[in-house]
Amino acid sequence: MRMSELSAATAVAVPTLKFYLREQLLHAGERTSPNQARYDETHVERVRLVRALIDVGGVSVARARDIIAALENDAMPLSSVFGVAQRAVTPPAGALNGPADEAASTAFTADSPGGRLILDLCRRRGWSVHSNNPGLAQAARVLDTYSALGHDRLHAVLDDYAEAADRVAGADLAAVASAPDRDEMTNVVIVGTVLGDALLAGLRRIAQEAESFRRFPLPAGTPTPTLLETDPSC
Amino acid sequence: MRMSELSAATAVAVPTLKFYLREQLLHAGERTSPNQARYDETHVERVRLVRALIDVGGVSVARARDIIAALENDAMPLSSVFGVAQRAVTPPAGALNGPADEAASTAFTADSPGGRLILDLCRRRGWSVHSNNPGLAQAARVLDTYSALGHDRLHAVLDDYAEAADRVAGADLAAVASAPDRDEMTNVVIVGTVLGDALLAGLRRIAQEAESFRRFPLPAGTPTPTLLETDPSC
Repeated sequence: MRMSELSAATAVAVPTLKFYLREQLLHAGERTSPNQARYDETHVERVRLVRALIDVGGVSVARARDIIAALENDAMPLSSVFGVAQRAVTPPAGALNGPADEAASTAFTADSPGGRLILDLCRRRGWSVHSNNPGLAQAARVLDTYSALGHDRLHAVLDDYAEAADRVAGADLAAVASAPDRDEMTNVVIVGTVLGDALLAGLRRIAQEAESFRRFPLPAGTPTPTLLETDPSC
Repeated sequence: MRMSELSAATAVAVPTLKFYLREQLLHAGERTSPNQARYDETHVERVRLVRALIDVGGVSVARARDIIAALENDAMPLSSVFGVAQRAVTPPAGALNGPADEAASTAFTADSPGGRLILDLCRRRGWSVHSNNPGLAQAARVLDTYSALGHDRLHAVLDDYAEAADRVAGADLAAVASAPDRDEMTNVVIVGTVLGDALLAGLRRIAQEAESFRRFPLPAGTPTPTLLETDPSC
């Protein structure tokens, strides 16, 4: 197919496709004339993946390029693919972007109370990870922020969160292991790691509201908004 | 204290403090002359909270203003405070920002395969929530994206993720319930909801790497990088 057809098939504008080609997010088509190239189903799939990473996963173009490179490197061990995907995910924390990028090559040092809590947690749970795992600094920073705001009581959530993280990681790896071959496994690692945060955050918002109604019922007389389960359109 | 002292106490520059005042993120000080005002400990605390929301939580200024308004509205039911905090959290998905803001006032309709999976999940788990809960559309969108990318196998994670979300929500609400008074409870709702996503995402990255080493050991001969637990600095 021509670029205009690739554009129609993916609903992505031609200038954007050209940008993806320049940024090496999309592999070149087969050249048919000095000004034309032919694209195929592999290009359609790649464009869909890039859109999902950027639009739904919130990944930057630079990080998407790292992911595509990992995808094309057949020799990269799966645990390293995980690392690339993890570092690509925009942390929910805006300003963590900068530090997180640097942290990619920096060993974690438990040099704050939050850091020591995370280190203890890793030992308690038998979590054996690289000292440059980006989650270490991110989790430590949140705990230190809780303290700075005078909310040490929030540290009490740590073990339940860790149990939840283990459950999620177990499901993530089971999905990877169920893939039929190495290419598909790499794909599942990337898509599941990058988009899984958004899925988990979404489910947390639902569970949180359900639990808050259980614990703190609305005061009598408050107009009851439409609940999902009573919505006739469902 | 004067504004310069508030700046020193919070490590936030004076022009930024003036911006917070204009944007109603910070309450006015007590005026002592036409050009001067006096600030106190409540201002220090507020500035710290605003910084945490914006820097660590990745919340926009507009959403931070909603949160501060909720904080100052003593009549707002706690479940509504949760709603404000949930909607303020930047979704891990970049492009979800726009739709999520609109979704704040839009009822969820299970009009896609992902939406129906989420609706079924809510029924299965007995999650009773408003139809405008922002997590519904966010979770549905991720599932639909998995499908669009040909990764239906990733739907298998849903029940484990939901179990994890319930565990996290239980811990969140227990932390809220442990606060001594209504002001503090509101604060814990906001801080825990906004920063909890980053904590959970960080722990997920750690658990995922630990689990991936268990399931997929590095090939023999691969140089072993420094693992956290063997790091002598720990």
